[in-house]
Amino acid sequence: MIVDIINKKRLGEELSYKELDTFFNGYLEGKVKDYQMAALLMAICIKGMTEEEVFALTKIFIDSGDILDFDELGVLVDKHSTGGIGDKVTLIIAPIVAACGCPVVKFSGRGLGYTGGTIDKLESIGGFRTDLSDEEIYEQIKKIGIVITGQTKDIVPMDKVIYALRDVTGTVSSVPLIASSIMSKKIAGGADKILIDVKVGKGALIDNEKEALELCDLMKKIGKIYHREVRTKISDMNVPLGYAIGNSLEVLEAMDILQGKEDNNCLVELCYDLASEMVSMSKGISKEEALKLVKEAVNKGYAYQKFLELVNSQGGSIEKISVSKKEKYIIADKSGIITNIDALELGKLSVMLGAGRSSKEDKIDYSVGIRLHYLVGEEVRKGDTLATIYVKSKVKLPKTKDIFEIKKKRTLKKNR
Amino acid sequence: MIVDIINKKRLGEELSYKELDTFFNGYLEGKVKDYQMAALLMAICIKGMTEEEVFALTKIFIDSGDILDFDELGVLVDKHSTGGIGDKVTLIIAPIVAACGCPVVKFSGRGLGYTGGTIDKLESIGGFRTDLSDEEIYEQIKKIGIVITGQTKDIVPMDKVIYALRDVTGTVSSVPLIASSIMSKKIAGGADKILIDVKVGKGALIDNEKEALELCDLMKKIGKIYHREVRTKISDMNVPLGYAIGNSLEVLEAMDILQGKEDNNCLVELCYDLASEMVSMSKGISKEEALKLVKEAVNKGYAYQKFLELVNSQGGSIEKISVSKKEKYIIADKSGIITNIDALELGKLSVMLGAGRSSKEDKIDYSVGIRLHYLVGEEVRKGDTLATIYVKSKVKLPKTKDIFEIKKKRTLKKNR
Repeated sequence: MIVDIINKKRLGEELSYKELDTFFNGYLEGKVKDYQMAALLMAICIKGMTEEEVFALTKIFIDSGDILDFDELGVLVDKHSTGGIGDKVTLIIAPIVAACGCPVVKFSGRGLGYTGGTIDKLESIGGFRTDLSDEEIYEQIKKIGIVITGQTKDIVPMDKVIYALRDVTGTVSSVPLIASSIMSKKIAGGADKILIDVKVGKGALIDNEKEALELCDLMKKIGKIYHREVRTKISDMNVPLGYAIGNSLEVLEAMDILQGKEDNNCLVELCYDLASEMVSMSKGISKEEALKLVKEAVNKGYAYQKFLELVNSQGGSIEKISVSKKEKYIIADKSGIITNIDALELGKLSVMLGAGRSSKEDKIDYSVGIRLHYLVGEEVRKGDTLATIYVKSKVKLPKTKDIFEIKKKRTLKKNR
Repeated sequence: MIVDIINKKRLGEELSYKELDTFFNGYLEGKVKDYQMAALLMAICIKGMTEEEVFALTKIFIDSGDILDFDELGVLVDKHSTGGIGDKVTLIIAPIVAACGCPVVKFSGRGLGYTGGTIDKLESIGGFRTDLSDEEIYEQIKKIGIVITGQTKDIVPMDKVIYALRDVTGTVSSVPLIASSIMSKKIAGGADKILIDVKVGKGALIDNEKEALELCDLMKKIGKIYHREVRTKISDMNVPLGYAIGNSLEVLEAMDILQGKEDNNCLVELCYDLASEMVSMSKGISKEEALKLVKEAVNKGYAYQKFLELVNSQGGSIEKISVSKKEKYIIADKSGIITNIDALELGKLSVMLGAGRSSKEDKIDYSVGIRLHYLVGEEVRKGDTLATIYVKSKVKLPKTKDIFEIKKKRTLKKNR
């Protein structure tokens, strides 16, 4: 009985493959109701899952749909980020890696919680299509070596419905659920080697290092079962990634970085690091060698060129990226050093502006967002503009101190 | 935001009155969805609630509907049982207490999980109405001093919807949720003094003594806030209560006990105990004095007479109690002493027979059920009929050992 399965997990017991299969496939068939799935997901969030349960769930997820196969294209490397505030990494590294001659097929998602989604960001480029058919994907990857599209209906359809339910039931932050969701999509999506960027911090799905390590470990173990090399990287997400938050603004920032216009920013460093990891995996070369190729691809303009090819091939036009003309400002109310920028509060603000969703049905406004003028560690003076807020409708702006932590410079006292 | 409230409870934090109010009243208004309520209920089940939260939730429950007032009838005592397999106590003690001259107005519920509900049992008496209007309740209580009816739509409507959702989402076993559900109904139902019979065991909502004590303590504290005397009793529910399980069968057993036809049975003992507690509370006399009145009421036939008045007044006819003619038997597969009868397995069997519901929409078959021929401690021989199963459709019967634990009598060995 369905309720018995929920009760078992509520008490922290292990569910068998058969029980998980009955429950999750029963949900797809409509026999298990939304509210029953929500109750089980919450019990899983709090009580956790054994490794065996996670392996079983991943298999059930994969088996719910088609499994793609790109073997004729050579070694396919995929990268996934668990998402964070202002995370436009995919937009930057996919073209870089493709420009290094490594094929990139990326199935991306929409925003979840306060974090944005790559697909939403790409759709801020007027005309950009994110619903390519299998045939279009094959054709484009052969022609230009890069595709970024939405998850097709046929790959892990179960993840789609569960993902949407988790988002509105407070069951997003769960290591076993995140692991099986990510790995099932990567495996069914045909990736041979997988790089996972696990974000940790207040603005991310996972807020502590311990869980991040568990997640990495679990994903590597799942990879082993399916003979996929999995590398992981844990990166900080307590502060936002780069200067821009909001869909169009983030695309513009990514374009700047691809053109080498930004260089003293930890986002650039992270992108170079992840891109060289992917090239290293794909080509079977050392990370140092790969880094050289990556830098060359950016400096010689190949990477930005690849981005334009991608946009063009998927029907987009960069002239059609629009940012709201209506600007508001957050002004420094004191002088000092910025010691923290609260990514979570920025995420909440961006959802309030309309750049993210607070319910499944919400439409996103691509043109709104936030552009920071300073990052952590920089010095500001009272009256400086800390951030520009691009708005469409009336919005109550937060106070400086809600987002920026500014501390007076410490003056050393002289010894008397 | 609704999801923030769920997340807070998932992390085990305390919710404010305002947050609980927003969430639960939002649910009644349709702003909070079934699946979101299910997720919160599961988080409450696992993470618990502080006393302050329980007091807040009880108030929110009470405030969701009307509050009845029977002041002109004198001191009204109500009894509630947390329910168990074969629990027909209300059917027995309500007429006894009324026959002792203490008015009884009982709002009862339907079956939940594997446990039966008094309303379902009464409805097995052909014609018995359980949907009395407020006017009918007042009139009947003045005339015959006893009413047992379903919860009116207007008393704690919130409990109705939450109760139904808990039943199908594995969120039934939660001390804070049980406490606020019971106490809100008793307080809004106009009871001045409240006796709660908390069942503990495998067949009951609560399966351990520690939680039972917590529940008792919590309900007394809620009672204090609303100036209601609350007495509690914890009773064992690992074995079924009496011989009968199933709606018509239980009514027939209750009628036997009211006529004094059963006396060597722990069910009778429990009923006398609870009835004298109620009479003691109602009349403000000692329990010993009350017990005398209770015994007299049964022995002189007043109690059974009161039961017949109740049935008659609410439109029922005891000639219309029907038990299925199709019988199956569980036969002892060895000789020995019965050391245990598994109430939970009997509960599951009764649901399978059709005597209980496995989903909200299920219809109950009143005529099916189980009649035990032996109780724990009795000696049986191989081939004896341990239980008669009254069936309607084809049912796979359990094996003897699934329900009955029979141990060989220990033979002392002679010293050589």
